[in-house]
Amino acid sequence: MFVLVNTKTYPCDPVAVAEAARAVEPSTDARLAVAPEPTALAAVAETGIETWAQHVDPIEPGSNTGSILAESVADAGAAGTLLNHSERRQRLDQLDESLTASGRAGLETIVCANTPAQAGAAAALGPDAVAIEPPALIGGDTPVSQADPNIVEDAVDAVGAVDSAVSVLCGAGISTGDDVLAARELGADGVLLASGVAKADDPAGALESLVDPL
Amino acid sequence: MFVLVNTKTYPCDPVAVAEAARAVEPSTDARLAVAPEPTALAAVAETGIETWAQHVDPIEPGSNTGSILAESVADAGAAGTLLNHSERRQRLDQLDESLTASGRAGLETIVCANTPAQAGAAAALGPDAVAIEPPALIGGDTPVSQADPNIVEDAVDAVGAVDSAVSVLCGAGISTGDDVLAARELGADGVLLASGVAKADDPAGALESLVDPL
Amino acid sequence: MFVLVNTKTYPCDPVAVAEAARAVEPSTDARLAVAPEPTALAAVAETGIETWAQHVDPIEPGSNTGSILAESVADAGAAGTLLNHSERRQRLDQLDESLTASGRAGLETIVCANTPAQAGAAAALGPDAVAIEPPALIGGDTPVSQADPNIVEDAVDAVGAVDSAVSVLCGAGISTGDDVLAARELGADGVLLASGVAKADDPAGALESLVDPL
Amino acid sequence: MFVLVNTKTYPCDPVAVAEAARAVEPSTDARLAVAPEPTALAAVAETGIETWAQHVDPIEPGSNTGSILAESVADAGAAGTLLNHSERRQRLDQLDESLTASGRAGLETIVCANTPAQAGAAAALGPDAVAIEPPALIGGDTPVSQADPNIVEDAVDAVGAVDSAVSVLCGAGISTGDDVLAARELGADGVLLASGVAKADDPAGALESLVDPL
Repeated sequence: MFVLVNTKTYPCDPVAVAEAARAVEPSTDARLAVAPEPTALAAVAETGIETWAQHVDPIEPGSNTGSILAESVADAGAAGTLLNHSERRQRLDQLDESLTASGRAGLETIVCANTPAQAGAAAALGPDAVAIEPPALIGGDTPVSQADPNIVEDAVDAVGAVDSAVSVLCGAGISTGDDVLAARELGADGVLLASGVAKADDPAGALESLVDPL
Repeated sequence: MFVLVNTKTYPCDPVAVAEAARAVEPSTDARLAVAPEPTALAAVAETGIETWAQHVDPIEPGSNTGSILAESVADAGAAGTLLNHSERRQRLDQLDESLTASGRAGLETIVCANTPAQAGAAAALGPDAVAIEPPALIGGDTPVSQADPNIVEDAVDAVGAVDSAVSVLCGAGISTGDDVLAARELGADGVLLASGVAKADDPAGALESLVDPL
Repeated sequence: MFVLVNTKTYPCDPVAVAEAARAVEPSTDARLAVAPEPTALAAVAETGIETWAQHVDPIEPGSNTGSILAESVADAGAAGTLLNHSERRQRLDQLDESLTASGRAGLETIVCANTPAQAGAAAALGPDAVAIEPPALIGGDTPVSQADPNIVEDAVDAVGAVDSAVSVLCGAGISTGDDVLAARELGADGVLLASGVAKADDPAGALESLVDPL
Repeated sequence: MFVLVNTKTYPCDPVAVAEAARAVEPSTDARLAVAPEPTALAAVAETGIETWAQHVDPIEPGSNTGSILAESVADAGAAGTLLNHSERRQRLDQLDESLTASGRAGLETIVCANTPAQAGAAAALGPDAVAIEPPALIGGDTPVSQADPNIVEDAVDAVGAVDSAVSVLCGAGISTGDDVLAARELGADGVLLASGVAKADDPAGALESLVDPL
């Protein structure tokens, strides 16, 4: 089970979250990673935790100002990148180009999608994984297992019909260990976490209770 | 074979192009249609030619200013709409919503894509057809059959692997009757035409020579 | 006083709203106009009411698909266009280019802005008018005179400091005749109306009561 | 004279450019600064050179993924930020919000603009400076003094008419010391440099010859 903590631009210290994840790692079989803002990538990577970018732009090295370059993100220590997050949607053609850029820089990729149809479309572009983020669950308190469990199973089916090599993650509605378990039972290979860990008073404790049932 | 003439915002009279298409219709088995600007939809539809929109926005009736609404386009006489044209790319989620809006308004849909992978992704969203527009051919003089015939066949394969009910059109590199034939031989169910007809001194003659070999 | 009714993409008949405005015209000194969707421009203009577009794209005649061309809007009968409406924001450089396109096509222009600073910025681009749309008033029931009257006066000052030839309209918070009066007293040369007229059971009656106090 | 070197996403080492600028500093009265990618901000700031961001998003700390936060950029050591660069244009309202975010984080601001009218508009939003980037000069070999010297003077006039407290920089067409001098003589308070220094074999030498005539 892959557990990726997105620290967004929360007023938290991503390095503290990374250290918390590092502390929890020995006690779980889950694969843990942290996705901080671009300015914090290098410092997070230095903690030794697996580090992900939150986004890379559909560009090559060259004349681009104010952009996030796949190569620079990889140089800073990132092993992968989220793409098309609900807070950073991309044009279909540019999402394809961001995937190309990620591949060129050796980054693993997770493309977010908010319906099974979009998950299938994302899978057709050849990412490593697709994260299904049902809009009803984004930022809410409803757990994925209660809201509409079919959406995860439907996403697993839609992705599998297009390319069975693409993993499926659950990208919203996860705030307890039971939610993580439910996501796994619905066919998800991993989960995206955010505020539940990143904004917790005790990120290590929060993360531990999330991965404990696995 | 579906032959759709996109009159873009060319300094031509879309109604004259529509009348030319109407004049050619009796002499061909091809299905002819014209896609004018939104301001010209009603006048083009009045000619009796099958009329298409060039784009509809991912919106519902309501508080939207400066947008193109699927219902309004259908009311003006459109039977279908292009989406995600290389000159009007959409975000993946908004493309999905434009398809939903089109379905709600009873519009047939063609989603443009510029690589086989994007064509497969577009097919996963459930349009009626996907038009492959190889970037190297857009706006150029190279015919699709000479430039890279594989791209059309690869798009046909990519779309077929995702959803065999989705047709494939060739969206660039078509300027002669031989190009139309070549597109059909490569597996395309139709073609998108633009300047070759819309900007011709004699649109009816231009269109006739394009559909003649069919 | 300029009174522009934006019919957005409401599920109303823009031609009926235009005819209502036409019926009210003889009884008021206010200048009345209607801004329908692009597909309805020609039919609205045929009623004889002054017709405006809701948006034009920063383009020239040529290879553009799914765009709204200034020349086409003018050909359909529009005398002017809104730009940068809160539902159709533009990039600064593209707003400048849409103004250039509007000027080329002989369209009068109103640029929307939601703060006095943005109103001043809009004025520096040389439109005919700027419409201040305080975000707190957009789509709400609070009248502009009660919410924050300073914002209209501040917009008038900001625009006047940049270019005293640019008019200022009040673009939100107008639903009664008293609101129209209040806007005029705060220095506005006109108002933008939307649902209060466009969605009224009796658009002519609604419009009449709005312009009555003038 | 303010001399800001934008290292874009060039395949160069921004830290080496920063060290070159640091080495040149003692020999010039010009104020030197380097604007690297977000991933390199902290490392560039550690060299002791004045460090700028290339862009910040119109957001507050919170739920934003794949964005560049003003506070994070400031924490990484940036003293200021470019905004609305020709490679990263912004919507008028979002540019205003990025300026607000920059002010909140204590960042100095330079807003890019490509016409005198846009420069005036940018000045109305209250940045510290506006950089005029004539499109004809961007990425070209033509020096600003030869191409159209009026554009810089016109920008100086347009900005001065709106807010005389806003400085004007010349953002394109600078590749020699004579260009820097010419920009100063046309009324510019500074220049933006990019490839001429960032991609030079000897960045320190390149920078030295640029600031030497000052």
